[in-house]
Amino acid sequence: MNRVKIIGEPLKSIPWQEKPDHYEGVIWRHDQNPITPRNPTQKTGRIFNSAVVPYNGEFVGVFRADQKHMKAFLHMGWSKDALHWEFSDSEIHWKDEEGNPDDPYYAYDPRIIKIGDTYYIVWCTEFGGGPSLGLGMTKDFVNFTRLENMCLPCNRNGVLFPRKINGKYYMLSRPSDTGHTPFGDIFISESPDLVYWGRHRKVMTRGGSGWWQSVKIGAGSVPIETTEGWLLFYHGVASTCNGFVYSFGAAVLDINEPSRVLFRTRDYLLTPEMDYETTGFVPNVVFPCATLTDSETGRIAIYYGAADTYVAVAYTKIEELMAYIKANSELCPGDRGIVR
Amino acid sequence: MNRVKIIGEPLKSIPWQEKPDHYEGVIWRHDQNPITPRNPTQKTGRIFNSAVVPYNGEFVGVFRADQKHMKAFLHMGWSKDALHWEFSDSEIHWKDEEGNPDDPYYAYDPRIIKIGDTYYIVWCTEFGGGPSLGLGMTKDFVNFTRLENMCLPCNRNGVLFPRKINGKYYMLSRPSDTGHTPFGDIFISESPDLVYWGRHRKVMTRGGSGWWQSVKIGAGSVPIETTEGWLLFYHGVASTCNGFVYSFGAAVLDINEPSRVLFRTRDYLLTPEMDYETTGFVPNVVFPCATLTDSETGRIAIYYGAADTYVAVAYTKIEELMAYIKANSELCPGDRGIVR
Amino acid sequence: MNRVKIIGEPLKSIPWQEKPDHYEGVIWRHDQNPITPRNPTQKTGRIFNSAVVPYNGEFVGVFRADQKHMKAFLHMGWSKDALHWEFSDSEIHWKDEEGNPDDPYYAYDPRIIKIGDTYYIVWCTEFGGGPSLGLGMTKDFVNFTRLENMCLPCNRNGVLFPRKINGKYYMLSRPSDTGHTPFGDIFISESPDLVYWGRHRKVMTRGGSGWWQSVKIGAGSVPIETTEGWLLFYHGVASTCNGFVYSFGAAVLDINEPSRVLFRTRDYLLTPEMDYETTGFVPNVVFPCATLTDSETGRIAIYYGAADTYVAVAYTKIEELMAYIKANSELCPGDRGIVR
Amino acid sequence: MNRVKIIGEPLKSIPWQEKPDHYEGVIWRHDQNPITPRNPTQKTGRIFNSAVVPYNGEFVGVFRADQKHMKAFLHMGWSKDALHWEFSDSEIHWKDEEGNPDDPYYAYDPRIIKIGDTYYIVWCTEFGGGPSLGLGMTKDFVNFTRLENMCLPCNRNGVLFPRKINGKYYMLSRPSDTGHTPFGDIFISESPDLVYWGRHRKVMTRGGSGWWQSVKIGAGSVPIETTEGWLLFYHGVASTCNGFVYSFGAAVLDINEPSRVLFRTRDYLLTPEMDYETTGFVPNVVFPCATLTDSETGRIAIYYGAADTYVAVAYTKIEELMAYIKANSELCPGDRGIVR
Amino acid sequence: MNRVKIIGEPLKSIPWQEKPDHYEGVIWRHDQNPITPRNPTQKTGRIFNSAVVPYNGEFVGVFRADQKHMKAFLHMGWSKDALHWEFSDSEIHWKDEEGNPDDPYYAYDPRIIKIGDTYYIVWCTEFGGGPSLGLGMTKDFVNFTRLENMCLPCNRNGVLFPRKINGKYYMLSRPSDTGHTPFGDIFISESPDLVYWGRHRKVMTRGGSGWWQSVKIGAGSVPIETTEGWLLFYHGVASTCNGFVYSFGAAVLDINEPSRVLFRTRDYLLTPEMDYETTGFVPNVVFPCATLTDSETGRIAIYYGAADTYVAVAYTKIEELMAYIKANSELCPGDRGIVR
Amino acid sequence: MNRVKIIGEPLKSIPWQEKPDHYEGVIWRHDQNPITPRNPTQKTGRIFNSAVVPYNGEFVGVFRADQKHMKAFLHMGWSKDALHWEFSDSEIHWKDEEGNPDDPYYAYDPRIIKIGDTYYIVWCTEFGGGPSLGLGMTKDFVNFTRLENMCLPCNRNGVLFPRKINGKYYMLSRPSDTGHTPFGDIFISESPDLVYWGRHRKVMTRGGSGWWQSVKIGAGSVPIETTEGWLLFYHGVASTCNGFVYSFGAAVLDINEPSRVLFRTRDYLLTPEMDYETTGFVPNVVFPCATLTDSETGRIAIYYGAADTYVAVAYTKIEELMAYIKANSELCPGDRGIVR
Repeated sequence: MNRVKIIGEPLKSIPWQEKPDHYEGVIWRHDQNPITPRNPTQKTGRIFNSAVVPYNGEFVGVFRADQKHMKAFLHMGWSKDALHWEFSDSEIHWKDEEGNPDDPYYAYDPRIIKIGDTYYIVWCTEFGGGPSLGLGMTKDFVNFTRLENMCLPCNRNGVLFPRKINGKYYMLSRPSDTGHTPFGDIFISESPDLVYWGRHRKVMTRGGSGWWQSVKIGAGSVPIETTEGWLLFYHGVASTCNGFVYSFGAAVLDINEPSRVLFRTRDYLLTPEMDYETTGFVPNVVFPCATLTDSETGRIAIYYGAADTYVAVAYTKIEELMAYIKANSELCPGDRGIVR
Repeated sequence: MNRVKIIGEPLKSIPWQEKPDHYEGVIWRHDQNPITPRNPTQKTGRIFNSAVVPYNGEFVGVFRADQKHMKAFLHMGWSKDALHWEFSDSEIHWKDEEGNPDDPYYAYDPRIIKIGDTYYIVWCTEFGGGPSLGLGMTKDFVNFTRLENMCLPCNRNGVLFPRKINGKYYMLSRPSDTGHTPFGDIFISESPDLVYWGRHRKVMTRGGSGWWQSVKIGAGSVPIETTEGWLLFYHGVASTCNGFVYSFGAAVLDINEPSRVLFRTRDYLLTPEMDYETTGFVPNVVFPCATLTDSETGRIAIYYGAADTYVAVAYTKIEELMAYIKANSELCPGDRGIVR
Repeated sequence: MNRVKIIGEPLKSIPWQEKPDHYEGVIWRHDQNPITPRNPTQKTGRIFNSAVVPYNGEFVGVFRADQKHMKAFLHMGWSKDALHWEFSDSEIHWKDEEGNPDDPYYAYDPRIIKIGDTYYIVWCTEFGGGPSLGLGMTKDFVNFTRLENMCLPCNRNGVLFPRKINGKYYMLSRPSDTGHTPFGDIFISESPDLVYWGRHRKVMTRGGSGWWQSVKIGAGSVPIETTEGWLLFYHGVASTCNGFVYSFGAAVLDINEPSRVLFRTRDYLLTPEMDYETTGFVPNVVFPCATLTDSETGRIAIYYGAADTYVAVAYTKIEELMAYIKANSELCPGDRGIVR
Repeated sequence: MNRVKIIGEPLKSIPWQEKPDHYEGVIWRHDQNPITPRNPTQKTGRIFNSAVVPYNGEFVGVFRADQKHMKAFLHMGWSKDALHWEFSDSEIHWKDEEGNPDDPYYAYDPRIIKIGDTYYIVWCTEFGGGPSLGLGMTKDFVNFTRLENMCLPCNRNGVLFPRKINGKYYMLSRPSDTGHTPFGDIFISESPDLVYWGRHRKVMTRGGSGWWQSVKIGAGSVPIETTEGWLLFYHGVASTCNGFVYSFGAAVLDINEPSRVLFRTRDYLLTPEMDYETTGFVPNVVFPCATLTDSETGRIAIYYGAADTYVAVAYTKIEELMAYIKANSELCPGDRGIVR
Repeated sequence: MNRVKIIGEPLKSIPWQEKPDHYEGVIWRHDQNPITPRNPTQKTGRIFNSAVVPYNGEFVGVFRADQKHMKAFLHMGWSKDALHWEFSDSEIHWKDEEGNPDDPYYAYDPRIIKIGDTYYIVWCTEFGGGPSLGLGMTKDFVNFTRLENMCLPCNRNGVLFPRKINGKYYMLSRPSDTGHTPFGDIFISESPDLVYWGRHRKVMTRGGSGWWQSVKIGAGSVPIETTEGWLLFYHGVASTCNGFVYSFGAAVLDINEPSRVLFRTRDYLLTPEMDYETTGFVPNVVFPCATLTDSETGRIAIYYGAADTYVAVAYTKIEELMAYIKANSELCPGDRGIVR
Repeated sequence: MNRVKIIGEPLKSIPWQEKPDHYEGVIWRHDQNPITPRNPTQKTGRIFNSAVVPYNGEFVGVFRADQKHMKAFLHMGWSKDALHWEFSDSEIHWKDEEGNPDDPYYAYDPRIIKIGDTYYIVWCTEFGGGPSLGLGMTKDFVNFTRLENMCLPCNRNGVLFPRKINGKYYMLSRPSDTGHTPFGDIFISESPDLVYWGRHRKVMTRGGSGWWQSVKIGAGSVPIETTEGWLLFYHGVASTCNGFVYSFGAAVLDINEPSRVLFRTRDYLLTPEMDYETTGFVPNVVFPCATLTDSETGRIAIYYGAADTYVAVAYTKIEELMAYIKANSELCPGDRGIVR
């Protein structure tokens, strides 16, 4: 029998806790959640929906920080164990490719994607009056170069794949409207050079019998390469008379043709249940943006925003998770349809 | 002086706690609320808004269970003390009157009404694109027969009276729209046979000086027969800038002409105050669906959903409650108007 | 070859004009449309969406009249040729079955259905704060008896079948909301006695590739019995950035099981094109409410409201129409599904 | 160097706690918050958004009390230390200037303004179908005289200045709509006599880079006279997919020309963070309505409503606060523009 | 018997046509309507909703002109017969009371009120982000002085009474929201000096059995003093699925206490029926803003905007009109209630 | 003095009429408008918003045809004079680049752009649940090859520039939402190959003092190369209480850097005024999609949709038009800002 494996570096130092006794789910929470407090720095009120990567034997992260005027910016964070973080009190400042200052009007929900030796950062940025996908790069987390926005507005939740596939870059995104968007599906776009994008396809559709994902879905963390395909954690949203509820599930995309969904969880994997998830600036939100993985043990630490107020961590193991996904998969009408 | 009495069986075994010292209300909460946890079974995330009845010296219930895909279905539960419940991990499966499978697309907010030796179950069911009132029956809580839907969409919160009145069956309902419905009053319909319904009348209107019931009202538990009339717990909804708030009150309907409201509480009897009521999947909801009564002592245990997340229990006594209702009654314009 | 025939009385005196040369459609307009002016009587501003029947060798009608305060009531009209009408300046007054006055708060969009020797009138009536279906009867168009409302609110566009089917009465209706209703499908209900109704089924669904009927559909005229099934003209609504557009098409329902759709026009048969249809109180409305038929010639005169301002007439012949319907039919998902 | 001072009476007895160690903000919470419980009296469910003043060596207050029917009225409260309050279980009853009863249909969010020896009370009152600003006066907190409403509907959050300026009375207000109002700026009006009002000017605009105040802003407490200008605490509202979030900041207005904003905090000073602020009848609300000040020490105790459920208290000192405001001020486009 | 008379100057030269034969209404249209074309001047696209007065033996007017950028401004017009108008191609320019330029950002729906020898102009003006009531004056229609805005936003349709009553000025207005406003009633305010306003009262309420005025109502022309009271033409709005319909009716207010409604037409007096009223920039609008009267003959010429595109004229006579109003009056709940 | 010229082919055969006497505008209508009737072919109800080009000495066009089910498709048309058209009764059928059928679910508002010897067609196409920009090509108007969609949803009103600029293709578009979109600005995107697109910039913003373009703006016809820059006709939308009004104006973009707006008309050039523009399926729409030009005479014939019902034609001359644009230009905030 073929055992599923994460394709990537071993990384023993990622955060880890074993599954609690009697716990039935395939994803379990870190027992010291949340890992960030309110008012984590002088200027910031809440840090959440953020991205972390290993760097130089330790960890760095680009964090969504809602400053005390409530506008969001990207702040750097550094950590030895990826659980206790030291944050910059100032936002990252960008320069364009000519070296001129090029800061966005706001910036939120970043993802970091290492491709080769470059760290790309994708975030939700203001573009001509609506949200769009900002792109930048750094090699040292000191100098940040802003590249071209990846698409026209309105769009959110952009994620790059961590390597080229058949010689092309790929991006997942969720076309949106200018406000709180009552619709949203996951699309994929292709690029030869990270500047020009095309051959857009629809990958996954909201809806189906999973009501937790009936309003909108959006890519969460950077796809994890595995022997079974690309593993993607993604958020889904349900609507109640008192607002949206954000949960998350997972999908597996074809390794060579990532617009094809192979499997997709009918049920949520994590839904707001703890006080720090049900109460806060936006109640009832769990929102995954990053993972750390250890290919040797198959451990995955998932970083997710809680209630638009905190960073929290959850754990799973690739074998258990993949077995669950395959056994509990339900595609929605339109998935795998390679629609253009 | 005439003392008010519940007309029905004595039932000493219902849950009971005396009113706490210094507590001023006429309804008080069970001190171990909520009585259900999150994730009560493997497949379900939340159980709430549910119906219980005595059965064979113990208790059974039909529970709204939001499974982990977040669609709601009806699950059976069994209990010796009506407080500690064992739930089925699978939904009830229905057959039509010819014995063919006839499961609803979703099912929520059930009520159980014993008429003679039959247990009727009314729930909110999908019907042609909108919510309507499903009806079924069982005698043994093992075999469930689905009958005709009781009305055209859109409707919710249907409740049958527990006996015929003047030879006819009666149902309370709350006509709705397809979504979260910003209006809602209680109507009554009459039937010779539970198949055909007519002679519809409006019973109670939202509004009046009770703002807790200004947006919509809906029948809660099955009407309790008393020497003063039918006692009905019903929910009422207020609207805030951050969503709906569900509270509940009570009304007394004429024993022979149940479209006539005799009394109706101006104030709520219970409103969300405890953490398990103010926080959860839908914050700020208390929603009564069932009662257990002991005619000998006049005790009433009220089962209500809390925050669309938990089952909770509250207590009252018929004499104290009825005295309060009569002393604090306010009818709304249109009530008792026998409008058609 | 079987020639399709209308099952019913011959009636040579119905209005008639042959199809204009070079006209390509299967329904053509009366060349003196509209047949009613603005301000047709002292108290009324507009007459439209109305019902006519042959009576005593001439014609009578029950007309929606928007009086000059703009509330709608039902007014009687009399005509020798069914084109030139004399209207009552006062609304019909109703008595209940005990002979007490029982006038509705408003009344609009009437249909007349002759069953046996009784003329039943169905209209949209106020019921407890929302629209519902009023029912009344007359034998002489002088005395009008109001019967029980046929359903709970909210509902509009109710039409009875002109005879019992398998011993039961049948009604088509379109469940609605309290306002301008952005959804609407056609349901059928069954009754032993016109008082109690049940065994509701969904008959036809909005949508499909016919965008003229994508927002809502509703029964128009009383079903015409033919050798091919029940012929129903029904309206469909499209939405533009400047409001709704009402067109109409036709469907054929199974003669013995009228919840089954046999055929249904993918395209509209008539859509607003003439000044009196595109301009008026509600621009862009054609809304059929009645037909007159001659079984001998197969002629059908269709009465439709234009722009909520005028009564207009159009013509067709049963053979040409039925051939068109069968050749251009498209059922929508859910049609013929006998959904409950 | 000029030290900023509060112009007014010394009042040592106001509540006070020093700033906690390591606390970084300029406003800190009372450590026994909230100072009112749920169900503070028999008839009332929640007391919040309320006004307090020193009176006869102790303290009195006019409190927004949501009674158990959920309509709001003004209730009196008395306290020796301004932290522990005894409330009336009945609402204040008003008489008009001729001594006839003149109670409002509802009354909420009161402010008390002492001008000379008279205590004026401004509240949000029903006026012809919308909210407007009610005005009344008392000298003894026993007899309450209702004066003319200060403006046409719709308006909320009216506050008087505590003395005439250049011989005229001044009022701040926030024009609104009939519901939850998605817009709102602060205007000022002038009056010779508290009856007739004119020379309206816009003072402060929602928006700017402070997103906490992007939806609407409204005057909170009565302006405090200082050597630097009028110090105003005001609330600001942000919008999330799950509702509004109310925070508060502060502004300084010109002492002689109060329509001119001199400074205004870009960041919020207090935002919902504690359980009693993030959870309750309206989650995520802090809403200042009153202050107590001690001119000698510069201490300020701020009374604010929490979650439309509780009264809470926070502290600051005038010198630290004013220094912060001046160092962190950002005017919005249109501020100081003296727009009419 | 007392014959009703207009109190004012005789003015034989006003436009006049006798009522057409067989016409049944009490108000009849000018047979050369509309009296303005599209593109009446080089810079303007449409002139409508405008005010005219006699001046120096001829007529002048202040006209709403939507310039070709579609923003509205006030333009002067001159006419010998009040039917054929010569318009200025430029908007009126205002100076404040110190003589500085003080032009509004936009200006529409003007009324002219002559009080003594001064012509006051009230219009809808931008004020701090919403509509409010601008006020200005002229004595020569050459120099225009802007006075203080009369109220806080949001308000529209302000009209002054043409003389002081009991020593005070009076204004009618319709509080609004920032957009197309789905509500609206007529209020009255009092002023000693046209600067400060107070003692606001609600005069007339939308609704009642007149559905033409169920959404909102607003004062139209300047009240005409008669021996029976102040005669006010006012517009009322109904809502259809395809937008608003503006009609107009009339009311009579008490001569000394103008907040008291004596009579009010249940039915509209004029509703959009002609092509120039049903079709144009805003279809289905008739909107009265001015009258010319001849006290000797009792003739009244009413100027109304048609479809936000044209100026049109209609006629009536005071005796016939007043008799009709008194015979067909229906007050709405709340009218004459002297609500504050 | 430099006279402005169109850069392109002379084409004497384009439709032409001289400006009518006394007409003041710079664009004048064809006097036989509209040039298409209702029901232009058997299957189609309305043809409008369409594109025409010279071809083989005559003219061809790709027309938006709303078929009688009301869904829109692209139909071919042929004409000798570009005024009298013969239309195909069937929609264009597409093949993908491999020759497989690849028809869109719907297709509307086409533009044709000749680049080299290839005719590109851009239209609004369904893509994964929202509107997006379809792209195809033909060389003979017989075989049509569908290329990759140009962008992610939601987008409408895409137009290509008629030649490469600095070696790149350029496209204008208007990002939208899934429905009738209450916002909309014009963006530009760049491509090396018509497959991949990037370097998106915002070109022009809705708003400014031109209220005719306050809701949204969108590129209309293909940019015309002139000696002064690219001449673009574009539509703008105003909002009334009865719906949207579509007018059109013109802009001039920098010839080498087309994201830079040089001039832009503050006023509309054409607005709905004629019956065929103010009345129809969507009242009050003029919507330009194409032009024919003659470089020798400077004549321009503009094709525009009228009321979503007809094709109409208007005329202008390049010198008069360009002089007008330059003299009446107003840029909006953000225009020329080269925003990304």
